[in-house]
Amino acid sequence: MIELNYPNGIKKKNNNSFDNKISHKNRGITLENEINSSNEYYREVEKAYIYKKPTPIKIVKVDYPSRDKAVIKEAYFTIPSTTDYNGLYKGKYIDFEAKETKSKTSFPLSNIHNHQIKHLENIYNNNGISFLIVRFTKLNETYLLETNIFIDYIKNENKKSIPIDFFRENAYLIKDGYCPKIDYLKIVDKIIGGI
Amino acid sequence: MIELNYPNGIKKKNNNSFDNKISHKNRGITLENEINSSNEYYREVEKAYIYKKPTPIKIVKVDYPSRDKAVIKEAYFTIPSTTDYNGLYKGKYIDFEAKETKSKTSFPLSNIHNHQIKHLENIYNNNGISFLIVRFTKLNETYLLETNIFIDYIKNENKKSIPIDFFRENAYLIKDGYCPKIDYLKIVDKIIGGI
Repeated sequence: MIELNYPNGIKKKNNNSFDNKISHKNRGITLENEINSSNEYYREVEKAYIYKKPTPIKIVKVDYPSRDKAVIKEAYFTIPSTTDYNGLYKGKYIDFEAKETKSKTSFPLSNIHNHQIKHLENIYNNNGISFLIVRFTKLNETYLLETNIFIDYIKNENKKSIPIDFFRENAYLIKDGYCPKIDYLKIVDKIIGGI
Repeated sequence: MIELNYPNGIKKKNNNSFDNKISHKNRGITLENEINSSNEYYREVEKAYIYKKPTPIKIVKVDYPSRDKAVIKEAYFTIPSTTDYNGLYKGKYIDFEAKETKSKTSFPLSNIHNHQIKHLENIYNNNGISFLIVRFTKLNETYLLETNIFIDYIKNENKKSIPIDFFRENAYLIKDGYCPKIDYLKIVDKIIGGI
């Protein structure tokens, strides 16, 4: 690990090396955090109201140690029936799923459940705005892929993954920003403008 | 408890008595179930894509008895940051909260968190369709109250509850149906038509 000596005496780890370690260890968390903080920013400036849905869980056992306090003692993660994010922007219904992959060459379709794909398609067919956000963590490239292009790929190509070149040619690259960290609504503006 | 003898020998409990016991014991579940099944119906006929969000939970401890199996061993219910239901209908963003009360005279505002009220207001102000569905279980009356009328009441009246007469005069009565059980989109059509 490279350490950089700053003038004020603070030792700061090399950012790239640090980021790689984080994203390697907590796969999926980094993109999620960045989208969540961007959504918070959008809400603060009253630009959009988009939230991550809670993780779906099947609760089996709950204890009540006191009258007002419930402790879940046994529960299981369940398969989500829809996507992770939805909300309102410019009067339009926004719906998307966000995924990370460690692969440098392609995005495995096993990352997305069939009923999530069907859900994205339903939203697209009913005048909502729906898409995927896919990050290739090791390439540090994040793309917004519109549902219609995604569905066309699945229907026309009988493959188990989408190559990185397909994203480079058919999806929008989302550049890293500061505030918001991941300004995907800038791309949604292009999609809305193109409808 | 009254039991009815049916010709084929099946003993069936008296429905009303049974329903009262259920709604008394599982307060809030009946309306939720009816809305969920109505939303399922709307999806099946491809009319709308509206879902209940999962219950928000803070997970503290997870065990992994085997590689692919995760068991949540300690978790707590958390206060929801938004409403329970949202989705897409006729290209519009729909957002609402549903509540039951056992009171025969008024709906206690303590049933709704402040940030849920703020959320409904944000959606209303940004060209989404937002509202409350409130059921007075003992009166068997269910109302759809538009956010702007709800917010006006809160701002103009310094009260801790909304009287039933306010609902009768200012909200839409949702009549019991068969399929869907609670056809609230019929009322949303009126709201959309009136915008």
